[in-house]
Amino acid sequence: MSKIQNFGIIGGDKRQLYCGRSMEEDGYRVAYCGFSKEEGFPIHHDAVMTVLEQSDAVLLPLPCTRDGLTVNAPRSEQVVLLEELFDIFGKIPVFCGMKKQLPFRAEMLYDYAEREEFAVENAVATAEGAIECAMHHYEGTLHHAACLVTGYGRIGRILSSMLRGLGSDVTVSARSLKDQAAIRSCGMKAISSEQLTGHYDLIFNTVPSLILHAQALAKIAADALVIDLASAPGGVDFEAAERLSIPTVHALSLPGKVAPKTSGIIIKNAVYNIIREEGL
Amino acid sequence: MSKIQNFGIIGGDKRQLYCGRSMEEDGYRVAYCGFSKEEGFPIHHDAVMTVLEQSDAVLLPLPCTRDGLTVNAPRSEQVVLLEELFDIFGKIPVFCGMKKQLPFRAEMLYDYAEREEFAVENAVATAEGAIECAMHHYEGTLHHAACLVTGYGRIGRILSSMLRGLGSDVTVSARSLKDQAAIRSCGMKAISSEQLTGHYDLIFNTVPSLILHAQALAKIAADALVIDLASAPGGVDFEAAERLSIPTVHALSLPGKVAPKTSGIIIKNAVYNIIREEGL
Amino acid sequence: MSKIQNFGIIGGDKRQLYCGRSMEEDGYRVAYCGFSKEEGFPIHHDAVMTVLEQSDAVLLPLPCTRDGLTVNAPRSEQVVLLEELFDIFGKIPVFCGMKKQLPFRAEMLYDYAEREEFAVENAVATAEGAIECAMHHYEGTLHHAACLVTGYGRIGRILSSMLRGLGSDVTVSARSLKDQAAIRSCGMKAISSEQLTGHYDLIFNTVPSLILHAQALAKIAADALVIDLASAPGGVDFEAAERLSIPTVHALSLPGKVAPKTSGIIIKNAVYNIIREEGL
Amino acid sequence: MSKIQNFGIIGGDKRQLYCGRSMEEDGYRVAYCGFSKEEGFPIHHDAVMTVLEQSDAVLLPLPCTRDGLTVNAPRSEQVVLLEELFDIFGKIPVFCGMKKQLPFRAEMLYDYAEREEFAVENAVATAEGAIECAMHHYEGTLHHAACLVTGYGRIGRILSSMLRGLGSDVTVSARSLKDQAAIRSCGMKAISSEQLTGHYDLIFNTVPSLILHAQALAKIAADALVIDLASAPGGVDFEAAERLSIPTVHALSLPGKVAPKTSGIIIKNAVYNIIREEGL
Repeated sequence: MSKIQNFGIIGGDKRQLYCGRSMEEDGYRVAYCGFSKEEGFPIHHDAVMTVLEQSDAVLLPLPCTRDGLTVNAPRSEQVVLLEELFDIFGKIPVFCGMKKQLPFRAEMLYDYAEREEFAVENAVATAEGAIECAMHHYEGTLHHAACLVTGYGRIGRILSSMLRGLGSDVTVSARSLKDQAAIRSCGMKAISSEQLTGHYDLIFNTVPSLILHAQALAKIAADALVIDLASAPGGVDFEAAERLSIPTVHALSLPGKVAPKTSGIIIKNAVYNIIREEGL
Repeated sequence: MSKIQNFGIIGGDKRQLYCGRSMEEDGYRVAYCGFSKEEGFPIHHDAVMTVLEQSDAVLLPLPCTRDGLTVNAPRSEQVVLLEELFDIFGKIPVFCGMKKQLPFRAEMLYDYAEREEFAVENAVATAEGAIECAMHHYEGTLHHAACLVTGYGRIGRILSSMLRGLGSDVTVSARSLKDQAAIRSCGMKAISSEQLTGHYDLIFNTVPSLILHAQALAKIAADALVIDLASAPGGVDFEAAERLSIPTVHALSLPGKVAPKTSGIIIKNAVYNIIREEGL
Repeated sequence: MSKIQNFGIIGGDKRQLYCGRSMEEDGYRVAYCGFSKEEGFPIHHDAVMTVLEQSDAVLLPLPCTRDGLTVNAPRSEQVVLLEELFDIFGKIPVFCGMKKQLPFRAEMLYDYAEREEFAVENAVATAEGAIECAMHHYEGTLHHAACLVTGYGRIGRILSSMLRGLGSDVTVSARSLKDQAAIRSCGMKAISSEQLTGHYDLIFNTVPSLILHAQALAKIAADALVIDLASAPGGVDFEAAERLSIPTVHALSLPGKVAPKTSGIIIKNAVYNIIREEGL
Repeated sequence: MSKIQNFGIIGGDKRQLYCGRSMEEDGYRVAYCGFSKEEGFPIHHDAVMTVLEQSDAVLLPLPCTRDGLTVNAPRSEQVVLLEELFDIFGKIPVFCGMKKQLPFRAEMLYDYAEREEFAVENAVATAEGAIECAMHHYEGTLHHAACLVTGYGRIGRILSSMLRGLGSDVTVSARSLKDQAAIRSCGMKAISSEQLTGHYDLIFNTVPSLILHAQALAKIAADALVIDLASAPGGVDFEAAERLSIPTVHALSLPGKVAPKTSGIIIKNAVYNIIREEGL
């Protein structure tokens, strides 16, 4: 049984608020600061000091800071300086996303975003966001649409499976013969990443390097909508796409945008897993 | 081999334009009137008379008229009176949607919207539109969300299967034990339409009678988003939902809105089927 | 709450024994006669008279009789004459399969095999038996095999869906355009029953009339294994198949053979549904 | 374009014969020795010397030898000594399975069974064999049966997905939280391999170490059929299972047994991939 009974949640967006609500439903007490009242959550907003005094553990957002000086609190009028938190580091557990962004190191500082199960669960939310994005921009149905997913990593795997579940005609590209065999074993077509072929209505890129260069776009994407899910700069030559009149969407940070509730619960699960593993 | 080589497409929205484009790709000549240039389709807009002179068959929209006087042409600045078409009725085939709206009867007047395969194919587009709608309004992922689909007709069938393909936890309500057995045989939970039970994140109604009345809403929908897919007045007591602070969406005419391209092709397929069956 | 507390199960095969065991697990008392001890079920075998005296309701097998004289009890050394049961007909509920085989009519005589939910649940067991049969006889994997299912009724529906779940490449034939559209909406290929086309590794017939005649076999089944699931005489010209060296299996009564346990529970469920509906 | 035009296939079982037939269909000439005429394949059986003289490449079975002296040729009356092949090693490509069993090394000796895509494709055949085995031994339907798959490697992945496709209620055990998240993302239940819980109708073991020890069996397998897919000694305490009256099947080498045709094609594909990669 964990000693932690009171969480302080400082900064972030709706994900942290949903995370907190779900922790409260699990029986924890949660104090909040660094949020805008406009998010529509019926929470009590406290001063940083008050939150810290009440907490056995602190939860920072993903990413925890963007400037190295303040806690990332995009919707808040309240600025929370990282130095206001100095006293707690090393004394109580602090859970944050992308701890490398912090300008210092400390004991009991845990990064939930580094965990593999966090990445897998987020991939589901990203895949679903990609599908919503495709449904929104594409004027046909995904059902029976010819879809290419480039890459068969975490996101490629779940995205291709969901597309198949919707009735799309799915092709996946991968580099290794092993992955190509695995793709076929899931009832989809496999092509080599080095030799993209075919004609598609929708192309979802999950590869974080320039796989959809001008020649590839010209060859397979003439009538396609291209959705790039890879972090900037992404895997698509956007300039070439514009030149070729191929519509593109660079869809980033989908989980937080399309499914903040689920994203909050994914953060909570990762935090709980850390608590269990570390015996906090 | 059909004698029809030239189609005249008069009025409608993007569906008819996509239908026409697809007919052109199949080798037909197509003339258009009753559209706005703003739809972004690179077509030549003709006068009604010109279109009629060039056509072996005419395609009217779905519904073909709303007022009994003019062709339904919502985006057009051009008004096309039904009486302008009088000369062709009975002479060449006219394909329309909801021919009962017309104030007269004629030979060779065919209703593509009455066909069963048209209804089945549209159900796919409706189901996908419902999923897009749910993804847009719901703050979690459909994946792992507890979903109830009321009714196991055309739309209920395909919608529940697609939700399952996305990884939702799907329950379907049906009246007959036979349908309940069929639902279970597809790996989903079945409940009786007369006794709705459970707690859901999302409820999709496909039943065109008041199934989600105040008591049902209070019992199973307290934390749900309710999406009503049944034609007006629908199957949801919207007033009660508001009183109970249950968010609702009445999602109508989804195929044309979310997937005009696919809808156009569904119309085309139905027209082709009529031509084949009737030997036109 | 039903007045029935004691079931007498007379005749049949393993299905009835599994049915009885499951009823016992539900809290009923069950007495048995007309079974062989060799089935391996640890039950007490009683005389007919003893069973009838103890029972509030009697369960007869499917079919209840084959000769119109005795209860169908294929594995039993004990012969149970229908006339031994005369006294109970009309006095207590009797549940049987195929009551038309009985040479008389009576009050409170219910046929569980006539019920639609029974048929749907049995279709699942039939489909699974067909798959086991195909796996046993076919030297490749069903995965990636080209499979044709003729007919899209109860069995065709669930069988095609299971084959798809195993990764087969599935085509289904149906007569109506509506069913063909429904097949495509489930992500499978549809062909017309009147014009069977393609080349298949496996063909499953579910149509109870001669659909796979000599010409059809020659055209699409040259390299196929044909499994006929339709009751005798079936839908396959077996003579022509032999002439063409096409291997065939006429697989009948699969549920009882491959899944007696599930079949027994399906009988139980149907009996319970009758009890509920009739207020017995 | 490869220089290989003539294959010599020496020894093995039906898999090699199907492999050869498929190579012939691809336009290669194939010579055979070391087979029994009883397999029913219409091939010409040659003497070893004749085969070697005609061949640009030689295919040995999986495993290529069991005793280090002769080619593994279980059905043949003809004994082929490894030393009869000495002259060709290093001169022309030799493709074999489990080359470590050979008592020597040589140039141009390739092991198709070591390849990852071979392992993935075989996992499909193993999974299907496991399902056939379960269908054969289990008296219920897999549909709606509670199934546990232990391990989420190559076989666990495809087997659990196929079971889900048949409508089973699937739980998978895995050690890492990451794999447990992946299992849940595929719509199945995940449990920890260290703490097996639940009650199952069927348990499929894919873990090659003692995971189903006496305590685990007693806890979760009391009413289950246990199918062990892991190579000897397997992952099941078979003695304890017998003591607990739990039926078990140790199902080994399934692909060759249940799907020799597909297995032969998998061998062919791997050989072709080697030829392409090595520029043979």
